[in-house]
Amino acid sequence: VNAPRCLLICVGSELLRGKLNTHASHISRRLASIGLALNEENTVGDDLQEIATAIQKGLDQFEIVIISGGLGPTFDDLSREAASKASGKPLIRSKKIVQELRAKFHRAHYRMPPKNARQADVLEGATVIANRVGTAPGQWLPLPSSPAATSRGSILILLPGPPSELYPMLEGFILPRLKKQFPPPPTAEAHMHFVGVPESLVDHKVRPIIERAARGGDRVQFTILAHLALVDLDIFVSATSSARARHTLSRIVNAVKRAVGDAWYGSDADYPLEKVVGDHLRSKHATVAVAESCTGGLLAGRLTDLSGSSDYFREGCVTYTNIAKTRYLRVPESLIRKHGAVSKPVAVAMAQGIRKNAASTWGVGITGIAGPTGGTSQKPVGLVYIAFASKNRTVCKEYHFRGSREAIRLRAVLSALDSLRNL
Amino acid sequence: VNAPRCLLICVGSELLRGKLNTHASHISRRLASIGLALNEENTVGDDLQEIATAIQKGLDQFEIVIISGGLGPTFDDLSREAASKASGKPLIRSKKIVQELRAKFHRAHYRMPPKNARQADVLEGATVIANRVGTAPGQWLPLPSSPAATSRGSILILLPGPPSELYPMLEGFILPRLKKQFPPPPTAEAHMHFVGVPESLVDHKVRPIIERAARGGDRVQFTILAHLALVDLDIFVSATSSARARHTLSRIVNAVKRAVGDAWYGSDADYPLEKVVGDHLRSKHATVAVAESCTGGLLAGRLTDLSGSSDYFREGCVTYTNIAKTRYLRVPESLIRKHGAVSKPVAVAMAQGIRKNAASTWGVGITGIAGPTGGTSQKPVGLVYIAFASKNRTVCKEYHFRGSREAIRLRAVLSALDSLRNL
Repeated sequence: VNAPRCLLICVGSELLRGKLNTHASHISRRLASIGLALNEENTVGDDLQEIATAIQKGLDQFEIVIISGGLGPTFDDLSREAASKASGKPLIRSKKIVQELRAKFHRAHYRMPPKNARQADVLEGATVIANRVGTAPGQWLPLPSSPAATSRGSILILLPGPPSELYPMLEGFILPRLKKQFPPPPTAEAHMHFVGVPESLVDHKVRPIIERAARGGDRVQFTILAHLALVDLDIFVSATSSARARHTLSRIVNAVKRAVGDAWYGSDADYPLEKVVGDHLRSKHATVAVAESCTGGLLAGRLTDLSGSSDYFREGCVTYTNIAKTRYLRVPESLIRKHGAVSKPVAVAMAQGIRKNAASTWGVGITGIAGPTGGTSQKPVGLVYIAFASKNRTVCKEYHFRGSREAIRLRAVLSALDSLRNL
Repeated sequence: VNAPRCLLICVGSELLRGKLNTHASHISRRLASIGLALNEENTVGDDLQEIATAIQKGLDQFEIVIISGGLGPTFDDLSREAASKASGKPLIRSKKIVQELRAKFHRAHYRMPPKNARQADVLEGATVIANRVGTAPGQWLPLPSSPAATSRGSILILLPGPPSELYPMLEGFILPRLKKQFPPPPTAEAHMHFVGVPESLVDHKVRPIIERAARGGDRVQFTILAHLALVDLDIFVSATSSARARHTLSRIVNAVKRAVGDAWYGSDADYPLEKVVGDHLRSKHATVAVAESCTGGLLAGRLTDLSGSSDYFREGCVTYTNIAKTRYLRVPESLIRKHGAVSKPVAVAMAQGIRKNAASTWGVGITGIAGPTGGTSQKPVGLVYIAFASKNRTVCKEYHFRGSREAIRLRAVLSALDSLRNL
């Protein structure tokens, strides 16, 4: 039996008026984790006929049709009605869901507007998927093959548009159900993370390895996703047995590590760089304190992103002004006057100063020019110094980042985390 | 005459395997700048039949069909062949383009691989769009209406996938041509931003205003987009004259401001809340310093997001530990012992402490429980105190945020910015 074909329909006029659509990227990667592929994506506006046409086409050609968005309470949320039109299944208002909606509003100290009751309309025969974050429940409706269809019948899935609501439903309901219905062949997967290398370089090094491995007869798929200085590589191997899939996978993973080298920092599905750093610090009973200028608190923000970060994060200072650098961190005024606030000696003094304040294992000092203004020919926009001080040693790195202010600040934060991981 | 309908077809299996697709977002915004709208987007993999089917459907229903990707030299670059199949126009190899391709390779000190000559295949009747960055030229092909089509004939546009190659062709060729062929109707648009109100409430208040305005005979469209505590409302008016469109728009905008009240904070296409706060502080020659616990530097990070933020942002402390609160901010140990670190008096003392340190107009103190662990029945996850201290007054607000650690931290930051704007 062939793998079922899957269509994603994204509903929302805002997605055709500038808003970035991240659903295809996320959902395709999560489907891959259970051995399924996304075969096509279609974005339509908030128009009943257009949504219904897209769903109709989907039901004719795909075994899995996922619709995201258009489940809100307002007049331009039309996915329920369009799904009803396309599938021929009437919408039935669920009293139970109406009560749950009222209770949610009540807990938030609002009275439910009457039109919100629309969110309780359920396609006849559909299973309701609870929404623990927002108000719109999802729906799961198996449909038999229609006489005209070329497919073997379809599953119609309605999900809300906001990722914070969609993702939990995907993990808690959709993926387990799909996995049960379409048992994946014996599969092994790896999720490798890299920092500080371009996507094209990873692609260039990885492709021949995958091609070589695929010649062995197993099915090997991979996805690469880059976000600024980070690159994620997901590898999926399907084989005649689990043992064989795992064996092929581990050969690939080892070859990739050798080929890409130091830039590899971890291999978990969900392993952000700040968690690598946090786990590392915790395992060594080490602590960190940070003094930031151009990154304005973003490194501290990252380091405190995870629950339990108080195990290793001590404190942070955002010393935007020279006087704050002197007052909080005891950076000598004369040092700033002589070398400038954006300089190696000042970064080092900031790192040493915050370390002394916090009595932490490591102190980090960041100073730079995030732009877009404030650069000179000697100290251009993108110049950033990042210093690390411990009891026994101090290192300072000079970076020349490119891109927008946002990109420069983020690259600086990621580079600081990358260095902390390697220290 | 109605505006022409436009379809974007993105070609590339990698877009269905995790790679983020930014084309719809970019192209839709650029089309809006010449009064055109993107009506639908469709992503398909590198499969000849699937691409051809998507193009065929596009030519039947849309006046403008833009295809991006699939113009490379390799076997899985199939957009040219698919366009030929769908349009019935044969591909003709251009000797001139073959020569130009050879010259490009020669300049880069490579010999052109024979398969690259495929990039010189041009649809009969198409205008070639030069590629100054890469090798694949674009194509622009006007097609008359077919007997079966419901449209008035179509323009078929082939563009390369990489943004660095696509964007210059869009700006230098596509947009000017489209603007000439489809002169934009008189249009006016507004982009309104709200904070601290639910999307459904904005919708509830706005909808009757839009409906009333639309009865005047002009075409009024709007979109509402919510992200956590922020709501964006975009309004587009088309009318018989520019003056009339602007007049109708300003009546709508004023009515919306009156209806939604305090939650409105700005009306620019790109006007983040931190800019509103920054502009406000700058105009009053006021400065701010922030002391953060649960938000771990994210408020400082937000306040320094914009170039020139040193005009109003003084300094920040991330006092995660009690000892740091006492040392940096002079929060009395006894106060923490008596009320707990997450309490109104401690938030107030943090705000007053950082204000005194920085000699700033305002001091902000944030302390709370971001979770997911650390909550108790008296002080549950989501409880956050935000205090604001000036020379003459101190206010402290108590919040009960819901959601993930990330959502709670972000909501706290947005609430602090919202309060700063209102102070």
